[in-house]
Amino acid sequence: MFCLFFLFFLNLISFQNINAMLLFRRCHSLTRLGPLNTQRHQVAPAVVSCAVRLCSSSSSSEDHRSHQHVHSVSWKHGLAGLLAGTGAVLAYGLHHHKAERADIGVQTIEKSSSLPVFSQEEVTKHRSLENGIWVTYKGGVYDITEFVAMHPGGDKILLAAGGALEPFWALYAVHNQEHVLEILSEYKVGELSLEDLKKQQAVKSSDPYSSDPERHPVLHINNLKPFNAEPPPEILSDSYITPSAFFFKRNHLPVPQVDPASYQLHVEGLPGGTLTLSLEDLKTRFPKHTITATLQCAGNRRSEMNKVKQVKGLNWGIAAISNATWSGALLRDVLLAAGYKPDVAQWARHVQFEGLDTDVTGTTYGASIPLNKAVSEEGDVLLAYQMNGEDIPPDHGFPVRVVVPGTVGARNVKWLGKIVVSADESSSHWQQNDYKGFSPGTDWDTVDFKSAPAIQELPIQSAITTPADSAEIDRSEETLTVKGYAWSGGGREVVRVDVSLDGGKTWQVAQLRSGDKGQAPEPSPPTGRAWAWKLWEITAPLPPDARELEIVCKAVDNSYNMQPDTVPPIWNLRGVLSNAWHRVTVKIREDESEE
Amino acid sequence: MFCLFFLFFLNLISFQNINAMLLFRRCHSLTRLGPLNTQRHQVAPAVVSCAVRLCSSSSSSEDHRSHQHVHSVSWKHGLAGLLAGTGAVLAYGLHHHKAERADIGVQTIEKSSSLPVFSQEEVTKHRSLENGIWVTYKGGVYDITEFVAMHPGGDKILLAAGGALEPFWALYAVHNQEHVLEILSEYKVGELSLEDLKKQQAVKSSDPYSSDPERHPVLHINNLKPFNAEPPPEILSDSYITPSAFFFKRNHLPVPQVDPASYQLHVEGLPGGTLTLSLEDLKTRFPKHTITATLQCAGNRRSEMNKVKQVKGLNWGIAAISNATWSGALLRDVLLAAGYKPDVAQWARHVQFEGLDTDVTGTTYGASIPLNKAVSEEGDVLLAYQMNGEDIPPDHGFPVRVVVPGTVGARNVKWLGKIVVSADESSSHWQQNDYKGFSPGTDWDTVDFKSAPAIQELPIQSAITTPADSAEIDRSEETLTVKGYAWSGGGREVVRVDVSLDGGKTWQVAQLRSGDKGQAPEPSPPTGRAWAWKLWEITAPLPPDARELEIVCKAVDNSYNMQPDTVPPIWNLRGVLSNAWHRVTVKIREDESEE
Repeated sequence: MFCLFFLFFLNLISFQNINAMLLFRRCHSLTRLGPLNTQRHQVAPAVVSCAVRLCSSSSSSEDHRSHQHVHSVSWKHGLAGLLAGTGAVLAYGLHHHKAERADIGVQTIEKSSSLPVFSQEEVTKHRSLENGIWVTYKGGVYDITEFVAMHPGGDKILLAAGGALEPFWALYAVHNQEHVLEILSEYKVGELSLEDLKKQQAVKSSDPYSSDPERHPVLHINNLKPFNAEPPPEILSDSYITPSAFFFKRNHLPVPQVDPASYQLHVEGLPGGTLTLSLEDLKTRFPKHTITATLQCAGNRRSEMNKVKQVKGLNWGIAAISNATWSGALLRDVLLAAGYKPDVAQWARHVQFEGLDTDVTGTTYGASIPLNKAVSEEGDVLLAYQMNGEDIPPDHGFPVRVVVPGTVGARNVKWLGKIVVSADESSSHWQQNDYKGFSPGTDWDTVDFKSAPAIQELPIQSAITTPADSAEIDRSEETLTVKGYAWSGGGREVVRVDVSLDGGKTWQVAQLRSGDKGQAPEPSPPTGRAWAWKLWEITAPLPPDARELEIVCKAVDNSYNMQPDTVPPIWNLRGVLSNAWHRVTVKIREDESEE
Repeated sequence: MFCLFFLFFLNLISFQNINAMLLFRRCHSLTRLGPLNTQRHQVAPAVVSCAVRLCSSSSSSEDHRSHQHVHSVSWKHGLAGLLAGTGAVLAYGLHHHKAERADIGVQTIEKSSSLPVFSQEEVTKHRSLENGIWVTYKGGVYDITEFVAMHPGGDKILLAAGGALEPFWALYAVHNQEHVLEILSEYKVGELSLEDLKKQQAVKSSDPYSSDPERHPVLHINNLKPFNAEPPPEILSDSYITPSAFFFKRNHLPVPQVDPASYQLHVEGLPGGTLTLSLEDLKTRFPKHTITATLQCAGNRRSEMNKVKQVKGLNWGIAAISNATWSGALLRDVLLAAGYKPDVAQWARHVQFEGLDTDVTGTTYGASIPLNKAVSEEGDVLLAYQMNGEDIPPDHGFPVRVVVPGTVGARNVKWLGKIVVSADESSSHWQQNDYKGFSPGTDWDTVDFKSAPAIQELPIQSAITTPADSAEIDRSEETLTVKGYAWSGGGREVVRVDVSLDGGKTWQVAQLRSGDKGQAPEPSPPTGRAWAWKLWEITAPLPPDARELEIVCKAVDNSYNMQPDTVPPIWNLRGVLSNAWHRVTVKIREDESEE
């Protein structure tokens, strides 16, 4: 417990210059030396998974409520970082240690009816580390002060201090697991008065995801709340423009319900003051601009990194990437209308976006892009109100989203509410402490998120959509057709895809297409504005003696960037930027009559 | 001989639609079946090297003399391509075959004094394939008609038709080899009249390289004429700004002597007609703009590809890259002064550059870049008249060169004479049939230069400058310091260099610097305008048990592009874009007293 108290001490005196990381690592070492490693490791995956989801939905420090103001911002960030990583494992270890000691006590508490009864007013007094952190859950009162530093989701837990857990657990469905209830039970200190319990139930929290749209059943769901899903890979190469229903979904929060009639977009940070635009304004005051652009999640193909060593994040396959047409006003035009002039670039460097999707604290999703991308005549950044020729579907940002072609999905903010021209990047969690790449040698003990740039343009990427891994092919088929996609960030056009049937020893060049078969290809884009992927295909004779083929693809863009050969050297703790050669292995089934 | 005659036939009837490549491949197969493979292979390297140099200096089709007009352009290009590659090997094989048959005859011819005497007037009549191709060399007259198609340097040989070989051989010093004289001797048909021989000697051809500047003796020379050299790698990491004397030299032709007082730069292709500027105009009419930019040859690190399989080109080590400051007028400003307006972009796509360096035919070095790079406010393309604060040295383009930051060296045209805004890329050999990347599966039989884009931006690159490969380190030193450079094209900033001491199993992050030690680093460039390299360094403890270390480096740019792991999958027949992880192996010498 020494280290926990030390951390609290740190917090209380706002001792910002001491490296909390180092201290926490000392704690970690202590835990490692304890007798509970086995048990800790057994439960670690669940806790890590929990940490992942909470962390990827955690808010920035901009919008915290008054009861949090006792904490120094730097401490909170430090702790959140710690808890999100090895911290999660550690937290469970620490907790478990306590649990074991208190084992008999827990049983007693659970079954006892002699616990005191507290009013909501009394509970509400306990919302700081000084006074203790109390919460209620289904009529029980829990003193979770000691657990705060062990919470895999970081200090987010403090948001519930003095109140009910239910609305938070509804938002972060990961809590609906038995072991979470087990942990909670240990901290029970009393019962909520029947009167107050009834009041609580009267304002029953609704599931914030209950208004999420329906989705196509073919999607492979990586996470339900918030909704994250990808289409089956073979669907991707079926059509050059991905139908919206199949377009991968990547939500960080519940889908907000936005009334298009009252929708407002605020543009701030420019000399002329705030410009507010309605949807109608966007559609009528600015020329409609249409582009075809591929969006890709930074975590696409993360599952391949997980096979090397567990990373933090949703376990995406190869289909967290899709291609659509987008129509809307050019961000450049809107910024000009809002007063942007070239001399703004003397102090401004970034354009921040805020979504209308919020967590329970009101924190919105946020991200930013470099100013020069936003204002460039060749940047093609859109405030899009149409996807594939129709209103943007709810999952993709209705009524308005940003489309930043060539840039990682995370900056293409959906349900856009606010644009801020700024000297600084977005201070959001997703810009500052997520979506960054690190060396394979960097772990959660050593990571310094400030040391890496926020991902903007993505590197060259390609994958095999068909055949599927482990597919079997009849020898009698004689030839094999391999299909896939290839794309590069920054408007760099894919100029070649090499395919190997022997694990990378020999290579053939695939045929590229930038349109659907039988239709005219899209016109060749100007240099640096190739925002859309290429689909590719190759039909090759089955090698006569092979029983198994290791099919590999790698793409090249017009800056001649190439994909790295293997996953381990690009492995990183967040599992982003997974763009090594894609490999699938297929078996050749010999004709039985010949065997 | 069947195939040779077939090719001539092709030429004469301008039968452009038949695929000459296929036919030539048939010839190739015939040769392979012949009895002379062993001998052919023995001489192949020299011939290939010759082909390389001639090809890399061959001209475009723009400026051919009248006697060439009988050839169809497409045939010429086809033949040049063929002869430059496997064609070179083939040519020698064909020649050798003929030589063997004529062996006794050759001896007879050489020693005979009964050969006819020809006047220069008579020789000059033989300058077409119809009338035969005759040349003179040191008073001998040679009918080389049959040899033309076998010439490793392609149809360039026709430039000497009807005249003396001496001025051409002076330009392409590769001919000064005994086996070249042997080949020539077989084609002797007479003697030049004494009177005409004296006239020839009177206009004795001078060595076009005789006025080349002196160079620093530390440079490692890859080719003397034209001059191509690189500094020792360890010098590169000694200073952030490479001193001009050590900056790698990459000349395609003799260094022209340009009088700065009479220097003229012509800007063509814009609505206002031609703009002609003096050096003084460039210096006084336009703001002086200074950038720090790294230039890299497309062939940097080609030697590593040669170790996988022989490629065509100069055998560069890791130091065909250097960093300098450049000052001059912005190309954008000059184009605006010459009448460039945004509507020009409706038809123009490229800006072509012509150097003042010429071959004997008057063909200049040429290249082009995309128009949007040239006119972008963020492109920083310079018409530079200063390098490292002084007049640009002769080897680097005195008095004016183009500096296209972020772009392959080959487009940074030196001794700039002309700028042409155009719908088309430069038609030069170097833009069309050189400096392009291909799949490792593409060979000289299958290559289609039209299928690949001209290299512009270069991919992420890094290399270890110290320790040198095979160095020995004393165990008593305890630590090892590894240094190197890292750079990426397109203004993408290097954000990380990973170093491994165990061949890529584990990685550490190196320290980057963008300035010399003890001096303030250069200010961080705006996004997309990081034109200069980073030097990097790491000091790590010697692993206790290792006897040998495989040191590896790999860099990452801010688009998170990464270097490929290994050379074979990026091998290409021209040996360009060699940017796999760089590896050096060092031995650890144990302290003798401990052994």
